[in-house]
Amino acid sequence: MSSTSDDRRYVLTLGCPDRPGIIARITSFIAEFGGSIVEAGYHSDRESGWFFTRQAILAPTVPFPLDELRARFAAVAAELSPETDWQVLDSAARRRAVLLVSKDGHCLHDLLGRAASGELPATIEAVVGNHPDLADMTRAHGVKFHHVPFPRDPAERGPAFEQVRALVDAHEPDAVVLARFMQVLPAALCEHWAGRAINIHHSFLPSFVGARPYHQAFARGVKLIGATCHYVTPELDAGPIIEQDVTRIDHADTARDMVRQGRDIERVVLARGLRWHLEGRVLVHGRRTVVFD
Amino acid sequence: MSSTSDDRRYVLTLGCPDRPGIIARITSFIAEFGGSIVEAGYHSDRESGWFFTRQAILAPTVPFPLDELRARFAAVAAELSPETDWQVLDSAARRRAVLLVSKDGHCLHDLLGRAASGELPATIEAVVGNHPDLADMTRAHGVKFHHVPFPRDPAERGPAFEQVRALVDAHEPDAVVLARFMQVLPAALCEHWAGRAINIHHSFLPSFVGARPYHQAFARGVKLIGATCHYVTPELDAGPIIEQDVTRIDHADTARDMVRQGRDIERVVLARGLRWHLEGRVLVHGRRTVVFD
Amino acid sequence: MSSTSDDRRYVLTLGCPDRPGIIARITSFIAEFGGSIVEAGYHSDRESGWFFTRQAILAPTVPFPLDELRARFAAVAAELSPETDWQVLDSAARRRAVLLVSKDGHCLHDLLGRAASGELPATIEAVVGNHPDLADMTRAHGVKFHHVPFPRDPAERGPAFEQVRALVDAHEPDAVVLARFMQVLPAALCEHWAGRAINIHHSFLPSFVGARPYHQAFARGVKLIGATCHYVTPELDAGPIIEQDVTRIDHADTARDMVRQGRDIERVVLARGLRWHLEGRVLVHGRRTVVFD
Amino acid sequence: MSSTSDDRRYVLTLGCPDRPGIIARITSFIAEFGGSIVEAGYHSDRESGWFFTRQAILAPTVPFPLDELRARFAAVAAELSPETDWQVLDSAARRRAVLLVSKDGHCLHDLLGRAASGELPATIEAVVGNHPDLADMTRAHGVKFHHVPFPRDPAERGPAFEQVRALVDAHEPDAVVLARFMQVLPAALCEHWAGRAINIHHSFLPSFVGARPYHQAFARGVKLIGATCHYVTPELDAGPIIEQDVTRIDHADTARDMVRQGRDIERVVLARGLRWHLEGRVLVHGRRTVVFD
Repeated sequence: MSSTSDDRRYVLTLGCPDRPGIIARITSFIAEFGGSIVEAGYHSDRESGWFFTRQAILAPTVPFPLDELRARFAAVAAELSPETDWQVLDSAARRRAVLLVSKDGHCLHDLLGRAASGELPATIEAVVGNHPDLADMTRAHGVKFHHVPFPRDPAERGPAFEQVRALVDAHEPDAVVLARFMQVLPAALCEHWAGRAINIHHSFLPSFVGARPYHQAFARGVKLIGATCHYVTPELDAGPIIEQDVTRIDHADTARDMVRQGRDIERVVLARGLRWHLEGRVLVHGRRTVVFD
Repeated sequence: MSSTSDDRRYVLTLGCPDRPGIIARITSFIAEFGGSIVEAGYHSDRESGWFFTRQAILAPTVPFPLDELRARFAAVAAELSPETDWQVLDSAARRRAVLLVSKDGHCLHDLLGRAASGELPATIEAVVGNHPDLADMTRAHGVKFHHVPFPRDPAERGPAFEQVRALVDAHEPDAVVLARFMQVLPAALCEHWAGRAINIHHSFLPSFVGARPYHQAFARGVKLIGATCHYVTPELDAGPIIEQDVTRIDHADTARDMVRQGRDIERVVLARGLRWHLEGRVLVHGRRTVVFD
Repeated sequence: MSSTSDDRRYVLTLGCPDRPGIIARITSFIAEFGGSIVEAGYHSDRESGWFFTRQAILAPTVPFPLDELRARFAAVAAELSPETDWQVLDSAARRRAVLLVSKDGHCLHDLLGRAASGELPATIEAVVGNHPDLADMTRAHGVKFHHVPFPRDPAERGPAFEQVRALVDAHEPDAVVLARFMQVLPAALCEHWAGRAINIHHSFLPSFVGARPYHQAFARGVKLIGATCHYVTPELDAGPIIEQDVTRIDHADTARDMVRQGRDIERVVLARGLRWHLEGRVLVHGRRTVVFD
Repeated sequence: MSSTSDDRRYVLTLGCPDRPGIIARITSFIAEFGGSIVEAGYHSDRESGWFFTRQAILAPTVPFPLDELRARFAAVAAELSPETDWQVLDSAARRRAVLLVSKDGHCLHDLLGRAASGELPATIEAVVGNHPDLADMTRAHGVKFHHVPFPRDPAERGPAFEQVRALVDAHEPDAVVLARFMQVLPAALCEHWAGRAINIHHSFLPSFVGARPYHQAFARGVKLIGATCHYVTPELDAGPIIEQDVTRIDHADTARDMVRQGRDIERVVLARGLRWHLEGRVLVHGRRTVVFD
């Protein structure tokens, strides 16, 4: 999503129970005021009987303000079903991301670099780390870094998580990115950030859930390793998957080699999943995602 | 596309100059008679200013015969633009393919195997070969094989091509597949079969046009080899691309190894491109294709 | 491996505990009689402390018969370690494969096609099916088909498995290929064919072990599906992995679509793994494989 | 290559005319002093009749200094052939890279991030840019940035290139990386840095040589885009290829989308190619490379 005025878009996303006529109803609504649709994705999920769409309307072709577009569309949405779930994003509105990190900096560096190159459709508002290692690099990019030390005993981490929550929430982020955070979020925090907390897991899920997946992969003798970007839910590494990818390895690769090669996949999979999330391309339904990329 | 009666679909494909309201017009037309859209693809090409769509309507939800659907839609299409290019396919109608081959049988075997496994949405009506080598295998699959010998001198091949043309046209095929035919079609035949003749070229085009692409690839020292499925046009290996894929090679692979590994890519790329063509998923505009896969 | 006389090769494979000087010992042995090494792979596994090698020697450069090469090398192997595991294959010797199938013919068609195209370094001696569906196609390729009906009750399948065993063993196969056989082999049969029985599992292992992996993949909402070629061991889908690959899917793909797309991966992964096995490229150590491709 | 003392390695690379006995000669030399080979790659190129090897010897198993290893091996190399080309690298020796950039920072950011994460087996000594845009970011990473403005008229750029040459040469770099430098090096500079200057070209070569490859790719309607890392030679984009990769695109991707997606490939392909170069994994022979990865 770009913010140049010519190219400004209102992005409508919607999910509702499927029935004939939905596309016609929505697109007629847009056509009535002369709106120009520049991207349109539709999906009828026959398994769940649910319908999903994402449509990007050129903002200059909408003859009234965004608020009025939302107010007018609310009536259409209600007419389609009381269960309709929808929103309209403005591509010109700044999106905000907060990153949670630990000691491993490769995903952080990548996202800071993308932000600097204009490749990330969001600003990185702050980085919170349970170790101070990545503070200098973060600040060199002009981004705030908060160090929240975590006690060794998992049972005593409650206050640290409370502090992280407060630091994150202060920025009202559109995305809370666990960029190799290495801490399991408490269930309450998962619920609180539901649909906004995004994790990168360093395996091709559902293979190798939990700790040290590359070592698990080495022990099993797989021929490809991967990474998975998913929404965080209370069940570990089991949230709806946004994106995955793999890379080939062979018998000569040690677990340490896999760690190194895996980083190239982790970086790209996280960056891609995060961009799709920020651009309103990801619709969640149960444990599955619809991605209009 | 399946032919079970429940799942029978009318597949509408359309291209026309873009302007606001097209999706609304088409989907309203479908909604008016209660048609259920089970697959919908839309694309606005901002470069060319052209709009493309493919929509699969569940046939049992259309309360009149296909001919009437076509007649009614013709009015909508004309209203959108005099330039509108459209068709409605019936998933229950048998599609026909004719294959042209030479001596190399890997693509032929693959397509015969897919036809036998029910993976190809068409029947293979006949195979025409400029060598007799693949006759027995073709016939073992219960498919007709015609041998048309080609003279050595390219200048004298006119009558042979005329014979091929007659043999092919007798089947009124939806697809004429050059399954490693190794003969350059005369321009007139390219025009005659325009939009139906599909070739598999054993390189990642536009790299390595023409003869012995794997040997060209070896000489250049590339690290990936590929295959390209494209519509045949008079300019050699320059037609609109339907599908491409690649596989990794290394310094230890000789040109002969590349030939062998390349076959795995050729088979899959041709089968995929052919299926998309037969299911009305490929719309051509100039030198580019829109593929609603 | 080719059988043209010029290109005939003796392929030495060896595994033994690692220590300095092994490569020198082996290659000096070959150099002493002027042997020309055309392919050489070495691997020191630091985790297990084991050494592996595969070397292809041009047969015309060996000035004595294969038996004498084996006899002479036996002394070298014993000198390296009493645990040394080695063999010498002759690329000119015909390799034999027997295939086990059920109703699904896509892997069978592919392997028959490859055999016909000269892409498989083995002859397919026979096909055994627990259903008669694939008999005609097999016989059309000039290959014997044996139908062994399996009782519904798994507890009563012992005699059927005994019959399969006898039919297979009669061919003294170098590879017993479970080409979508869909029956779990009894442990005794796994042991009996250890190192020769190869299965294609239609998921990216260790994800989705067991039945209906594509349906499991659909339910989990993964973004890639895969296939795994592995040696059969008594523990289900847990044998040493020879080869794996994946293909991208998206939210629009149903479990049925995955079945269709997955077949393209299954075919290629099985064919590749089988070729490597037949050419002596796969060395097994515990649960891992060394593949000199 | 790691620099921890335990893991320190002497890496021998060699190319010479092939003949029987070379591996035995080299490995016997190493075995004589009890050297432990932890990585071994061999390649006999039958086309050119040339032999290549790379062997990593654990430094603690070599009972004399590196200089003596080199002196002793020189005799072996000379014995093999007067044409033998060889070197021995010390994994503990710091390797130096200098980067040339323009305005586009994605490759620079990536390499700076990798250097900070310890993923690059070299230090980035300096960055030279023909625009000042990337100066601040470079300096934030503690790396020197030199701005050398280039005149608009290509005919007048000689002095600027001279200045670049002097700045680069002052660091005696093992690698001169054109990280999207966007300037064609003069032939003299290509010769001067032969075997050390590495470029990332944003297409899958030999497709789309020269300027604006993504726009060329869009116009041709390809279904995959790629990137190529290669040694710089006087002929534009025609040097020996070290590494390539591709990513899938579709009809909905504009040239601008391709630019964005292509960056993910450029970053990874350049980083991989550069690492292989720095670790002595790339041997050049004519227009082809042997890569022992």
